[in-house]
Amino acid sequence: MSKKKMILDLDTGVDDTLAICYALGSPEVDLIGITGTYGNVLVQQGVRNALAILDLLGHPEVPVFAGLSHASFTEEEFEVLPVSAFIHGDNGIGDVEIEDSERSVEETPAVDFIIESVKKYGKDLIYVPTGPQTNLAAAIKKAPEIVDEIGAVVLMGGALTVPGNVNAWTEANISQDPDAANFVFRSGIPATMVGLDVTLQTLLTYKDTAVWREKDTYAAGKIADITDYYIKAYETTAPTLHGCGLHDPLAVAVAIDPTLVECLDINMKVDVDGPTRGRTIGDTDRLNDPVKTMKVAVKVDVPRFLDEFMTRIGNLVAAAK
Amino acid sequence: MSKKKMILDLDTGVDDTLAICYALGSPEVDLIGITGTYGNVLVQQGVRNALAILDLLGHPEVPVFAGLSHASFTEEEFEVLPVSAFIHGDNGIGDVEIEDSERSVEETPAVDFIIESVKKYGKDLIYVPTGPQTNLAAAIKKAPEIVDEIGAVVLMGGALTVPGNVNAWTEANISQDPDAANFVFRSGIPATMVGLDVTLQTLLTYKDTAVWREKDTYAAGKIADITDYYIKAYETTAPTLHGCGLHDPLAVAVAIDPTLVECLDINMKVDVDGPTRGRTIGDTDRLNDPVKTMKVAVKVDVPRFLDEFMTRIGNLVAAAK
Repeated sequence: MSKKKMILDLDTGVDDTLAICYALGSPEVDLIGITGTYGNVLVQQGVRNALAILDLLGHPEVPVFAGLSHASFTEEEFEVLPVSAFIHGDNGIGDVEIEDSERSVEETPAVDFIIESVKKYGKDLIYVPTGPQTNLAAAIKKAPEIVDEIGAVVLMGGALTVPGNVNAWTEANISQDPDAANFVFRSGIPATMVGLDVTLQTLLTYKDTAVWREKDTYAAGKIADITDYYIKAYETTAPTLHGCGLHDPLAVAVAIDPTLVECLDINMKVDVDGPTRGRTIGDTDRLNDPVKTMKVAVKVDVPRFLDEFMTRIGNLVAAAK
Repeated sequence: MSKKKMILDLDTGVDDTLAICYALGSPEVDLIGITGTYGNVLVQQGVRNALAILDLLGHPEVPVFAGLSHASFTEEEFEVLPVSAFIHGDNGIGDVEIEDSERSVEETPAVDFIIESVKKYGKDLIYVPTGPQTNLAAAIKKAPEIVDEIGAVVLMGGALTVPGNVNAWTEANISQDPDAANFVFRSGIPATMVGLDVTLQTLLTYKDTAVWREKDTYAAGKIADITDYYIKAYETTAPTLHGCGLHDPLAVAVAIDPTLVECLDINMKVDVDGPTRGRTIGDTDRLNDPVKTMKVAVKVDVPRFLDEFMTRIGNLVAAAK
């Protein structure tokens, strides 16, 4: 079996950083590129962070592509929400200083890189968006055939069986661009939604980051510092959880090993009108269609994921400078 | 194994009538009583209908108890919504004329009958509410210990993975009394939610009611007439479904044979504040509690249920006058 190729589509904040770590720490996949989006940070800051984190972890071979800078159907520039800055820090990576990379983003726009990669790798390509669905929606609009050609989309976003985290019905990534997410969900692309249903069950604590610090490398200390900022923010935003949610890395883990979660086969949509704009929910019009194009993760093997997470990130940061 | 005892809590409209049929047509259970609630009709009309339907089907031995007439935390009288009258008819049973029973409702209030039955039958008792949760909430408030003593609650109501039918987020039964439903859901009572997630998948058509007519009894004709009114209303309210949803009888069927559905183990709540009042959703505060007190049906074996439904109702109406 040929090794799977992975593209991460990130608004590189803290858990996006951990998603990069998980992908780089996984021998099962080749991370062929990171496409940048907005959300936790502006797209410029996100791609800057992605380049810096890749260098920190000793992987300057992974190219980074800038994506669209704001939601579909609007000309308004995106602005980072105060709560995002609170959770991820003003610089997106817990206000921890990481040297700028000497590299720059690629000239190819993210949307074109996504389409080219589908053409090149087809069913061997897994695309993992952990921010809004803006880039993927634009890629599908430009090249609709990729819906049938791509291997899989495993996205972090949404909330089907639990409330949202922006408000009672909307999860942050989906809320950034509900129209794009609705377009993707209804496009027929084979997608697994890894949402708050499962990611709020996979929690990391200071005890875990202390284990990384013991690796005693520069990268280990930085990744632990970045993550501790995030854990601290969770003490304020979600005091009952007793840890931080491993949203983005869980999506990467599921992309690599789908058996980590149990899924509901369901045709999904996103509410784009009315008071519940941004809610991810089953599409009644396609409820009785025997073909289900999406899977929604509703149960996760928490101990096994955390074990994989700690092993992979631990090994990665131990091997870095 | 002793035969299970069943109480139906009904706002006897059309699918409640089919729920009575399913219970009476099931040799696995003893229908020990019907408690009346409001929703499709006023409580007085509902118990009147229940008594009449029991007589029609040749089961005058089943007692009927009147329940509370309106939602918790309000003194306002309940009024039937125009859409309910449209779907169930002004008299609740498709504007079909069924002779009044010579019997009356019992003197014992529904809430007391529920509590007494739990005391008498304990784990052998299954309570199936197919309207608002008002009576059950009142019973739990009066005798909190029944939460641990009852066998099971299998309720028709709510929508977890699909939109509501009153609006985008609320299902009709829950919308009648969200506070009562939230109280029941968070009480710890073992409950299975049979909501729109599955009931909109189990559809009945004129072809099916025509099969009953062939039984050529008075009861068969009346039950077919009542159901046809409901199928016709669905042509207007849900033209894409091509049939009527078998909401209430599916809950009865699941109470008798839980293997008809696949369930998600989850701790649930009902939104009682904010714009999504009436939404049934997972309770984030208890997301990581290993003990799950509720099950939500998310998948249904449609052919097997429809087969059981047609067989049981067919046999019942064939054996009636």
